[in-house]
Amino acid sequence: MPDYFVEILGYVAATLTTASFLPQAILTIRTRDTDGLSLSMYSTFTLGVLCWLIYGIYLKNNVIIVANVITLFLAFLILSFKIYNTFFKKKA
Amino acid sequence: MPDYFVEILGYVAATLTTASFLPQAILTIRTRDTDGLSLSMYSTFTLGVLCWLIYGIYLKNNVIIVANVITLFLAFLILSFKIYNTFFKKKA
Repeated sequence: MPDYFVEILGYVAATLTTASFLPQAILTIRTRDTDGLSLSMYSTFTLGVLCWLIYGIYLKNNVIIVANVITLFLAFLILSFKIYNTFFKKKA
Repeated sequence: MPDYFVEILGYVAATLTTASFLPQAILTIRTRDTDGLSLSMYSTFTLGVLCWLIYGIYLKNNVIIVANVITLFLAFLILSFKIYNTFFKKKA
């Protein structure tokens, strides 16, 4: 398989896995409702995505870098809402 | 950074993102309850993980292969339950 085809396959993979995460991200960003989300799960996920990003930077692999920059941004945003709602929000 | 350290970082990344997916997978496999899951989201995710796996095989990157074989197995199992419950299960 030619190199550019492998790279395209990587971008298709990255687009699909990131796209599957988008509805949850959009819902949480719009509603700020994080009751249904697990703090430990999102902390683990966000840390994992950060490690993938650093891994991609060391490998100089653009597919891994682009995929994980976008996912890290979304995951970090959701995690921020979750931490705020869990520890700082005044109970109604 | 030495090569083996980069590979360890990759495995840490893979372990964290796969671990964050495990509670959902275990819950669904135990309860077979997929009402809270989105069919389109899981189809997109499973297809994306499959593409990542093929991408990893072409790159001969063991970290990407191992991470995505495990995630693909879990995602495919959950997707199978979702498809069965959506299209084949008799309504009570």
